[in-house]
Amino acid sequence: MSLHPLPTPGFSFELLATLGHARAGILHTPRGDIETPVFMPVGTAGTVKAMTGDELRALPIDAKIILGNTYHLYLRPGLEVMGAVGGLHKFAAWDRPILTDSGGFQVFSLAKLNDIDDDGVTFRSHIDGSKHRLTPEVSMAIQAALGSDIAMVFDQCPPGDADDATHELALARTTAWAKRSLAAPHAPGQAVFGIVQGGIDTARRLRHMAEITALDFDGHALGGLAVGEDIADTYRILDEVAHLLPANRPRYLMGVGTPTDLEKGIAAGIDMFDCVMPTRNARNGYLFVQSGPRVNIPNAANRLDLGPIDPECPCATCRTHSRAYLRHLYLAKEILYARLATLHNLTFYARHVRAIRDRILADGDRA
Amino acid sequence: MSLHPLPTPGFSFELLATLGHARAGILHTPRGDIETPVFMPVGTAGTVKAMTGDELRALPIDAKIILGNTYHLYLRPGLEVMGAVGGLHKFAAWDRPILTDSGGFQVFSLAKLNDIDDDGVTFRSHIDGSKHRLTPEVSMAIQAALGSDIAMVFDQCPPGDADDATHELALARTTAWAKRSLAAPHAPGQAVFGIVQGGIDTARRLRHMAEITALDFDGHALGGLAVGEDIADTYRILDEVAHLLPANRPRYLMGVGTPTDLEKGIAAGIDMFDCVMPTRNARNGYLFVQSGPRVNIPNAANRLDLGPIDPECPCATCRTHSRAYLRHLYLAKEILYARLATLHNLTFYARHVRAIRDRILADGDRA
Repeated sequence: MSLHPLPTPGFSFELLATLGHARAGILHTPRGDIETPVFMPVGTAGTVKAMTGDELRALPIDAKIILGNTYHLYLRPGLEVMGAVGGLHKFAAWDRPILTDSGGFQVFSLAKLNDIDDDGVTFRSHIDGSKHRLTPEVSMAIQAALGSDIAMVFDQCPPGDADDATHELALARTTAWAKRSLAAPHAPGQAVFGIVQGGIDTARRLRHMAEITALDFDGHALGGLAVGEDIADTYRILDEVAHLLPANRPRYLMGVGTPTDLEKGIAAGIDMFDCVMPTRNARNGYLFVQSGPRVNIPNAANRLDLGPIDPECPCATCRTHSRAYLRHLYLAKEILYARLATLHNLTFYARHVRAIRDRILADGDRA
Repeated sequence: MSLHPLPTPGFSFELLATLGHARAGILHTPRGDIETPVFMPVGTAGTVKAMTGDELRALPIDAKIILGNTYHLYLRPGLEVMGAVGGLHKFAAWDRPILTDSGGFQVFSLAKLNDIDDDGVTFRSHIDGSKHRLTPEVSMAIQAALGSDIAMVFDQCPPGDADDATHELALARTTAWAKRSLAAPHAPGQAVFGIVQGGIDTARRLRHMAEITALDFDGHALGGLAVGEDIADTYRILDEVAHLLPANRPRYLMGVGTPTDLEKGIAAGIDMFDCVMPTRNARNGYLFVQSGPRVNIPNAANRLDLGPIDPECPCATCRTHSRAYLRHLYLAKEILYARLATLHNLTFYARHVRAIRDRILADGDRA
């Protein structure tokens, strides 16, 4: 039997095929099926930047799940608005699944003057300097108000160059906070994923994995990777750790990464990814192509180039517009540039992951 | 016979009905029919800001013609790019008619250090300070390279508070430049419209109208209105002058205006309008509604408002999103806000003008 019920009613994880450590499956949720491996576009502030829901739902992107940021949505529009409108799905007119992070990563990376203690984090908003406090219970309450389909536990993610003592303290807190997150009230039908930290020390990672997987989470994430460490260490940890996460639950690599990172992650046994790279790179002029290096659209080589970004791409941008036009829009700071570029890069990521999934299904062993 | 051939082959103007001075008709062009009265969205730099061509062509906007700015496109991407790509239609992937202005208005309003003489204008780019010169012949050559369907003559538009001597000098130049523009080479199948200046002095307007309409233009524009004068003077000049423009050619009121301005202009006998108001206002938070004053979306009253911008509007923004969500996107400076707001305001303008046209057809006399 390859269909695994998950602890939260309505959720199950179906394994279809494996190829080495790589897996192809379906995460069944009350709001729809998510074919895995999957890339989740990041909708930081209630919008995947520059995109409409219709564009995200339609092929060639066909995003089955998007991510929302608890930190950003808590600060703006805030919980009063979110409560009044009935949650993030209604607010953003998005009817497919949403995964929310816990806010922890942003508190540590974006907020001013964060002050961590064993109970939680006090921080000042990067928008207006106002003072706030996040604890596991508060994070879960916010995620309940957002009404996401998958909530993440509140964790402490130390920087890539943190010393051993910092790592150990963060690990202890993350385990304690994981237990408190799981015990806190959450929205009806909301799955909760645990997060494994531990940096690039394999023994520490495995020790923390044992602590987190002993709890009854619907899925498991690897956090604290691609946060400044050497990419070789990232890949080593992935190879050593990912396939040891429980096989009957989805595995999520948080905040990663490049198209190559996704290949490596899938080969190591990861099922879910999110990253701002396709959307942010698009806005900054970097466009992905099937063959060759990324296109830097402002480059003078594109000035008179009548061809599309990528002749192999089926997106509306590539079917309609030339590199010359896109370069012009970029240099003129036109809003249309961000739309066309984001549509293309998200199409690239969606097709990249679907192609890998198709190979696992074609060449792998039935699960 | 209500079908009037125009001087340029392939162009004709068909009058269908009149109601007082108001007219409903069709401007037939080689690239498609334009039902008049018509509002032309402004595509300054080769894009109607934040919109795709598909969105502009689809109902409820269904723009039959858009405007391009010669000044902006000449400076960026420039004529080498425009020549290499084969003109503005191919560059912007827009297959319906395009009207280009002459660049004169922008040279006088945007460029640094413009220096006017009887032959033309020397100016510095607002982008990089580089020095350029526009003459009637250069403007027509640029518009030929852009390949617009309707080119405008190069004129001098004095400010609303100019003195008599300035007006007289500008008038004399504008007539001389109109003759030179008409005599200059233009693109095959490109219609040319003349421009009547003269400020808010009726006698001066009518004198200049006689000079311009004596030439053989495909259509006639009123320039130099809504450039700082009292709105009462704008409407007075429209009422006194517009219906005296030749009835068998299209009449175009340049750069105007509010929804009320469009009603007044149509009642006075105008057929064509352009203005940045719907697109620029959208980006600045001002959204038009059928009943009542414009909505200022950042207003706190919209914070918890689950209703659409305008319940009477069929646009995708109003069918999908709440004022609360749009307010959030505006305050978070999200690109999606500009898209959704522009789609709405252009829908409002398109429906506003189509509703007036329908009334002329329903209540007017067959032409």
